[in-house]
Amino acid sequence: MYIVNNNIGDRMISDLMLEAINIKDNGLVTNVKRKNGLKVTTVLSCDDSVVKKGKYITIEFKDIFNKYIKNEVIKELKVLLKDNNINDDDSALIIGLGNDDSTPDSLGPLVIGNIIVTRHLESLGLNSSRVVSAIKPGVTGETGIETKDIIKGVIEKVKPAFLIVIDALKSESLQRLSKTIQLTDTGIHPGSGVNNKRIGLSKETLGIPVIAIGVPTVCDIKTIIKGVTKKKINNIPEMIVTPKNIDFIIEKMSDLLSVCINSVLYGFKI
Amino acid sequence: MYIVNNNIGDRMISDLMLEAINIKDNGLVTNVKRKNGLKVTTVLSCDDSVVKKGKYITIEFKDIFNKYIKNEVIKELKVLLKDNNINDDDSALIIGLGNDDSTPDSLGPLVIGNIIVTRHLESLGLNSSRVVSAIKPGVTGETGIETKDIIKGVIEKVKPAFLIVIDALKSESLQRLSKTIQLTDTGIHPGSGVNNKRIGLSKETLGIPVIAIGVPTVCDIKTIIKGVTKKKINNIPEMIVTPKNIDFIIEKMSDLLSVCINSVLYGFKI
Amino acid sequence: MYIVNNNIGDRMISDLMLEAINIKDNGLVTNVKRKNGLKVTTVLSCDDSVVKKGKYITIEFKDIFNKYIKNEVIKELKVLLKDNNINDDDSALIIGLGNDDSTPDSLGPLVIGNIIVTRHLESLGLNSSRVVSAIKPGVTGETGIETKDIIKGVIEKVKPAFLIVIDALKSESLQRLSKTIQLTDTGIHPGSGVNNKRIGLSKETLGIPVIAIGVPTVCDIKTIIKGVTKKKINNIPEMIVTPKNIDFIIEKMSDLLSVCINSVLYGFKI
Amino acid sequence: MYIVNNNIGDRMISDLMLEAINIKDNGLVTNVKRKNGLKVTTVLSCDDSVVKKGKYITIEFKDIFNKYIKNEVIKELKVLLKDNNINDDDSALIIGLGNDDSTPDSLGPLVIGNIIVTRHLESLGLNSSRVVSAIKPGVTGETGIETKDIIKGVIEKVKPAFLIVIDALKSESLQRLSKTIQLTDTGIHPGSGVNNKRIGLSKETLGIPVIAIGVPTVCDIKTIIKGVTKKKINNIPEMIVTPKNIDFIIEKMSDLLSVCINSVLYGFKI
Repeated sequence: MYIVNNNIGDRMISDLMLEAINIKDNGLVTNVKRKNGLKVTTVLSCDDSVVKKGKYITIEFKDIFNKYIKNEVIKELKVLLKDNNINDDDSALIIGLGNDDSTPDSLGPLVIGNIIVTRHLESLGLNSSRVVSAIKPGVTGETGIETKDIIKGVIEKVKPAFLIVIDALKSESLQRLSKTIQLTDTGIHPGSGVNNKRIGLSKETLGIPVIAIGVPTVCDIKTIIKGVTKKKINNIPEMIVTPKNIDFIIEKMSDLLSVCINSVLYGFKI
Repeated sequence: MYIVNNNIGDRMISDLMLEAINIKDNGLVTNVKRKNGLKVTTVLSCDDSVVKKGKYITIEFKDIFNKYIKNEVIKELKVLLKDNNINDDDSALIIGLGNDDSTPDSLGPLVIGNIIVTRHLESLGLNSSRVVSAIKPGVTGETGIETKDIIKGVIEKVKPAFLIVIDALKSESLQRLSKTIQLTDTGIHPGSGVNNKRIGLSKETLGIPVIAIGVPTVCDIKTIIKGVTKKKINNIPEMIVTPKNIDFIIEKMSDLLSVCINSVLYGFKI
Repeated sequence: MYIVNNNIGDRMISDLMLEAINIKDNGLVTNVKRKNGLKVTTVLSCDDSVVKKGKYITIEFKDIFNKYIKNEVIKELKVLLKDNNINDDDSALIIGLGNDDSTPDSLGPLVIGNIIVTRHLESLGLNSSRVVSAIKPGVTGETGIETKDIIKGVIEKVKPAFLIVIDALKSESLQRLSKTIQLTDTGIHPGSGVNNKRIGLSKETLGIPVIAIGVPTVCDIKTIIKGVTKKKINNIPEMIVTPKNIDFIIEKMSDLLSVCINSVLYGFKI
Repeated sequence: MYIVNNNIGDRMISDLMLEAINIKDNGLVTNVKRKNGLKVTTVLSCDDSVVKKGKYITIEFKDIFNKYIKNEVIKELKVLLKDNNINDDDSALIIGLGNDDSTPDSLGPLVIGNIIVTRHLESLGLNSSRVVSAIKPGVTGETGIETKDIIKGVIEKVKPAFLIVIDALKSESLQRLSKTIQLTDTGIHPGSGVNNKRIGLSKETLGIPVIAIGVPTVCDIKTIIKGVTKKKINNIPEMIVTPKNIDFIIEKMSDLLSVCINSVLYGFKI
């Protein structure tokens, strides 16, 4: 989650780095490519002074059926693995954050349902590929447990070389909902996610690289109202804004991401 | 759906009669009771001049766990059946409108999952109670069929004496979401429901009494923004606003309504 | 459902034509092809004397991941449409029989979830392809209504040129479960399906061609026990036998069938 | 899982202690009560010589709607907690074993969905009751991780005083499916559960009391066939036998068990 300063003396919140800061004003190393209906913005933060040190890749598109999205996600995911010295035989733990009972927050758990796992085949001598495991840790409101505690507990037993974490994100912009995929090696920050998962997952806290893949699926109603009125309005209940066809979006996006992740993990052609 | 006139030259929409008109200004016969943490507003419209002729009962509450809600729903549902000359042995078709893949719109289908049906036991000589059947007709985006066509087709085969229709509604007020149950014998009007189901279900169109039970679970983002800015803003995407804990609300509300409907249909004590 | 005579004076039941009769002894016109790991048996029944008049295509395979299954299903489905004089612009109603709350019986409803529908776009002038609609009629135990009544009611409103019906079937053989796809233009017969859906859907009863696609997912425990003991054993409860990994099978098979049906309906390349 | 010796030189398997051994022949301390349509068998094993040391309570009933089941489960669960010196303010971790994508194996995860959790309220100072958390660890085929490793990892972070583990079990008897609830303080044994979860959860392995609640929902087809033929038959595929109405049974049983567990954890009256 990034705290966004605006001119009203109050703040908006976003899980998208591109929304959180003005990358031009902040002297970050930035590259923007436009091709095949995609806009791909790569931002490199060399220290933690503006945003957390690491690489942020934001893929923007108008149409979820654009066939170039998959190839771009696969390409950028490979870049992030290479940047972090992750090899083809390093073991992976894939984590689907979110609540599968609430459509806008169900992206992570749905992706996990389609990830091919192999770790249990190791001891049987049946696995000739990368060791992969995957969990849906649930949400704190359902488990009573901080999600990062579940993840830390599992990491200590499974001992993966790296994590890939998938989550539904909050955006400050209605226009961006379901039109953006953000990939980063900086992990997941406290306050991120649809229901403020208060979770910190990064190389610093966990000791292994954490690749995060996020898709904005909701806005906070307070952020939207502040954005149009330019002033803070009190007594707004805790609500989320989400596209009418969120069931369709979540289905297509979870299919897309699971195909991409399986392809990168196992070298499948798509 | 009711078109709400306001002072900005533009209109807000609501499925709740109480929001749609100023009942005092319109000379409607109105009764308001406050008891046990509930506010129950009964409005009687004697002709179609202001709102559709019939009875509208709105039960408002702060807390979904208020134990008096069930008794009130059962009581008012019985009143509506009696008003419409529906007898204890008249056959019922219960219809759960909405999309069970989208949490805020899944109230109707979830209620149907808990309705006790008996119609199939008739021909086996096993049924000693009211004849009840139940369907989830799905949504047009998934079936390609106007929902009212599916319902009309089933009515022609099943020939029920009356319908009870359950739907998730749109409100114009965030504060009202999940805090209101509306019961009416005027049926369902074109444009109602979370995704504008464009469905007209009433005694006039179907020939049998149609008791509708609705719970507001979403607001239209356009309505909310117009409400706070007092002006129309263009280029707002089609979005809905819904409580963060909508999965919890839908679960509790569908349990509550199915218990009430089964109790009224079969005379169960709760 | 086919009644299978055996030598014990009692009968086994199967929804698979290949299991129901000895095609050689019955003088049926039969063709068997073996290629690419598939065995495809085509049986032509010229009158109703042995089995219902029409074509039966049975595709058998060892491995659900065999990449040739899709092409074969598409090819045979096209043959059945052509045999029945169904043209590229004839409107289709796709029906997913079964119970989506019970994994072994959820094949039909899951396929429907992935069928592309267009009928609702017609009146908006947005459709340039075949008119397609799709329903999940539910099961009688949940609706209280005979499934064929729901289907007839919908057909009268939608007026499709033909039906495609998908169902999970009963086999008499454990070895065949999830290893066979049966396609036929003879429809669905009373007693078919996982929970004996007592449904008769055919050109004779409905007036339009009915293409049925079935996959055996369960056996009846009584049939299995009679098969191994060669005698009838009383007091066996109503039980089904199904593969341990039935969730995996249903997921893969519903993906496969929906891809094939969409391809045939719209001419998509796969 | 208990290995059952029979006279054929081969063995049947069961997760039910009552089926596994002849309690009379084995000199176990046994008490049988019959009342209100229930048969309650309590077996006390004083050492590990015959079956694992501890208490086994088996509640048998004909009708899942028997209203006395709930009171009996609550009563026996309280006895097991007291036997194990578990106090009213000891913290609990509730674990729902099984696969929520496969109806017969979804009992555990469904129970978890209705358990009231409080642990996350502790740090907010909002909890005045017992500290309770709950997880659905998933199945190894989906996670790639041994379920006991996930559980151990979570226990190390959450540090509960005791576990309650819910699982769908295998029986050797068709008649017993969905008609029995087994409660024990001996935990879960390797090989138990619908899909042989190869999990060992007990006070010995985890260091805290493990109360297990199991309901038989499936039989192994091999066990059934051996039972009727009295001989071993080769080449029987891996299949399960389950009631036709398993969706109904799982729904009712998960409601029943979650009500009982919440009642015992929090002292709710039912």
